Amino acid sequence: MRKVNIFDSTLRDGSQAQGISFSVADKIKIVKKLDELGISYIEAGNPSSNPKDREFFKKVKEIKLKNSKLCAFGSTRKPHCKAESDTNLQILTDSAVDVFCIFGKAWDFHVTDIIKTTLEENLSMIYDSIKFLKQKNKEVIFDAEHFFDGYKGNKEYAIKILMTAKDAGADSLVLCDTNGGTMPFEIEEIIRELVIDYGFKNLGIHCHNDSGNAVANSILAVKYGVNQVQGTITGFGERCGNANLSTIIADLQMKMGYNVINEKNMEQLTAVYRYICEVSNVIPNEKEPYVGSYAFAHKGGMHIDAVYKNPHSFEHIAPETVGNERKILMSEVSGRSTVMSIINSVNPDIKKDSKEAKKIIERLKELEYDGYQFEGAEGSFELLVRKELGLFKPSFKLIEYKVMIDKPSTTEKSATVAMKIKVNDTVEVTAADGYGPVNALDIALRKALGVFYKSVSTMYLTDYKVRVIGGDKATSAKVRVIIESTDGERTWTTIGVSYDIIEASWEALVDSVEYNLLKCNKEEFKNE
Amino acid sequence: MRKVNIFDSTLRDGSQAQGISFSVADKIKIVKKLDELGISYIEAGNPSSNPKDREFFKKVKEIKLKNSKLCAFGSTRKPHCKAESDTNLQILTDSAVDVFCIFGKAWDFHVTDIIKTTLEENLSMIYDSIKFLKQKNKEVIFDAEHFFDGYKGNKEYAIKILMTAKDAGADSLVLCDTNGGTMPFEIEEIIRELVIDYGFKNLGIHCHNDSGNAVANSILAVKYGVNQVQGTITGFGERCGNANLSTIIADLQMKMGYNVINEKNMEQLTAVYRYICEVSNVIPNEKEPYVGSYAFAHKGGMHIDAVYKNPHSFEHIAPETVGNERKILMSEVSGRSTVMSIINSVNPDIKKDSKEAKKIIERLKELEYDGYQFEGAEGSFELLVRKELGLFKPSFKLIEYKVMIDKPSTTEKSATVAMKIKVNDTVEVTAADGYGPVNALDIALRKALGVFYKSVSTMYLTDYKVRVIGGDKATSAKVRVIIESTDGERTWTTIGVSYDIIEASWEALVDSVEYNLLKCNKEEFKNE
Repeated sequence: MRKVNIFDSTLRDGSQAQGISFSVADKIKIVKKLDELGISYIEAGNPSSNPKDREFFKKVKEIKLKNSKLCAFGSTRKPHCKAESDTNLQILTDSAVDVFCIFGKAWDFHVTDIIKTTLEENLSMIYDSIKFLKQKNKEVIFDAEHFFDGYKGNKEYAIKILMTAKDAGADSLVLCDTNGGTMPFEIEEIIRELVIDYGFKNLGIHCHNDSGNAVANSILAVKYGVNQVQGTITGFGERCGNANLSTIIADLQMKMGYNVINEKNMEQLTAVYRYICEVSNVIPNEKEPYVGSYAFAHKGGMHIDAVYKNPHSFEHIAPETVGNERKILMSEVSGRSTVMSIINSVNPDIKKDSKEAKKIIERLKELEYDGYQFEGAEGSFELLVRKELGLFKPSFKLIEYKVMIDKPSTTEKSATVAMKIKVNDTVEVTAADGYGPVNALDIALRKALGVFYKSVSTMYLTDYKVRVIGGDKATSAKVRVIIESTDGERTWTTIGVSYDIIEASWEALVDSVEYNLLKCNKEEFKNE
Repeated sequence: MRKVNIFDSTLRDGSQAQGISFSVADKIKIVKKLDELGISYIEAGNPSSNPKDREFFKKVKEIKLKNSKLCAFGSTRKPHCKAESDTNLQILTDSAVDVFCIFGKAWDFHVTDIIKTTLEENLSMIYDSIKFLKQKNKEVIFDAEHFFDGYKGNKEYAIKILMTAKDAGADSLVLCDTNGGTMPFEIEEIIRELVIDYGFKNLGIHCHNDSGNAVANSILAVKYGVNQVQGTITGFGERCGNANLSTIIADLQMKMGYNVINEKNMEQLTAVYRYICEVSNVIPNEKEPYVGSYAFAHKGGMHIDAVYKNPHSFEHIAPETVGNERKILMSEVSGRSTVMSIINSVNPDIKKDSKEAKKIIERLKELEYDGYQFEGAEGSFELLVRKELGLFKPSFKLIEYKVMIDKPSTTEKSATVAMKIKVNDTVEVTAADGYGPVNALDIALRKALGVFYKSVSTMYLTDYKVRVIGGDKATSAKVRVIIESTDGERTWTTIGVSYDIIEASWEALVDSVEYNLLKCNKEEFKNE
């Protein structure tokens, strides 16, 4: 099994995406996680472009890596100077790493029209810069920027670029589809030519997704001879993103039989993808191949029946092999089998055609029509089933609350809540302030309930999402609030829908607390 | 230029995606839009699976289409019955359309293990069903479900399926990668064989994106001989989605020279993509090739400089050819040239190295650190520039507001706001109620300002988005609110960031109103 090296550029090319910005601490977290997964090269920044990256490359010595080599990114020397006296190359060699990736122009149009120098001088810039870095005994990866556009525009010159880099001692030559416009059959044709006709070895590929082909272009490049794939583990990157390495790793290793990462690490793939989204503060793409939360979600009724018979029928791989899981979704299309499996988790005796099942499905449809989506709110769905079956007894009754928000506010916490609840026959009156009304309501509710139930004090909310449903009415549009909560072990999600963001949040908060108490069986009722 | 037919299944396969549900009115809107774009076939639903689709296929007669043929989806007859007496086929032929797409099993494993019949009976089911529909003088498209998995498992049987469908009179044979696990080089090999060795004609392709190759597989299939591509215009679909037709249309027509849609309609591509997301209530994918809002967004400093010199340097096509536009993003990476272009739109005389420019950039960095992102809030950014340059005079001063929210509430509008503002020396006191505090504040502010400024009454908010920044603290986490407003002609976006959702919303509301007044030059100040 041929070894393919994965080169992750989340911290360099990925950070050029809209909305992405890493602190030094974020960078260290990501490096450690990619190392655990077994990525060959981690390109961690461009020290000559910004002080944050310079700081990072100083700290880097302290990180001990098991699998990965750290790499600093830079460019070839400026026109008409010496490599030794080029500030950027100097800063690069100050980094405490053993691998450098430098890019040079491989498209004649960019040389003449963008950096405005001669084709000859550009060749010297590449040669001198690589030579200089090799003299420092470093591994040098050369990114031939715009290689494919260059090849199509002036093939002879593009080939000369690769020859020059090779002659200067570059350890690998990376073919970049910088603008992302290259088609898969062009990749095949050009790489076959480089490998067979020109005998190039140690080639790499670097694709962008502007034509929707970054993954295919990368895996085809490997098939036709390259042994290094550059991209980002989440697909982050400028414009339409870099090639998505989580997909590519799985395709290469599970579908094509290459040796990419340690086999037992494949199960980490989903967790690593989601962790890096989290650190980057980007919402994970639910539809992402292999690692997305919908990647093994089934909704169509016939599909669900078939998956129950044999998962292989509608799953190209077993979700657990990449650390993901199957999801059975509820909806009008999915039919009863999905809903039934949840109903039966509450009461195994209820049959498909029973009155109870019909009643629950009717209620579900009404609520879906009103904007609820129980697909992402399993906690609320179980409560709904219990309510319809008469198996739910509320843990408390809200008598009233009043929220007051003042601007200007005398304290940082501008919202104050007064709340009165009743548990059995005992009334509890409480008050709390918070950063805004939802925070104040959350604190007040758990404060009041904490008098009666222990477990309320150990649970807390981990995520709060607001989605406007039908954005055309703006601030008076319906909103859907989804809350994720945890008690440290279990995690559950609940939902609220209303024209009023406070009401929707309240509904989801109440469900969250009720679900928690249900799972604790109320056994710790303090008054007992 | 070979004609390639596009077959859109947004309303059938797309509706099986998580979170998607179409009303009959939605379906009609989408059909009309796809027809305008020039899609060849629109698969609009499965009348035998649900009553909503049956209702739709009755209404369909009223829609006059210019370019598209409408198609109803169904399955082959059940095992061991006659096609004439199969209820689903009967319902199908009741639809007022001329094209039917029916699927049959092409993978032996599915025949024996899922529908549990014999391989021979499955062939008869396919033959009889197609024959029956052809006798009604309809165009019949046959979807060979799981064709590629079938071919890999039992090639002889998979080929027999296609032969049978062809013999029964199917007008086209569609090769489905139902589980999305097929690699691009397999597509190439198998389709070449079908076309060259077996001489099949009128083939189609139907891909899913589970391996990240749906687009590449579709365009490669066309290159090697198929002339119909099935997918969904936005990429909606079960699990990781169907093949994204907006990308495929652009790849085939602009990169590969096929005749797909009327050339002048290419400029509608971005608008159609966004419209269909909107009707489906799905947030458009910003990174979508060709049509995403980031598809031509530039952030890296060097890239922006190059794009200013020649857009071709970092854009694989001109954005306007698909109705999209270039975006220059602001950020610490992008350097000054981006920010300068906006500063110069306010005051063309300010130079890059001036004190004023430095001061604005410093302020921008501070705010970005605090969680602001001006990339999506151009209105607020222009106000920021004006404030820093001393070119901004507020249109009003807030003296105070008080928001009260009661539960239980005596009216549907649970939030009441009392507000006091000052314009010049005149104080206006007002009150409003609303569906929640943000709606009430919005109404009160425009009510109070309406006394002084005419244009405030013609503007309104079109979108309101809330994003939690750093979700780990849930209801006390920082939130970013983005508001989009319009006066019917102009559209602008503004931002607010705070731990308090009300404060963040207020900030964005105030910016929205101020930006509107700025653009109206306050010329309509009513007291003057």
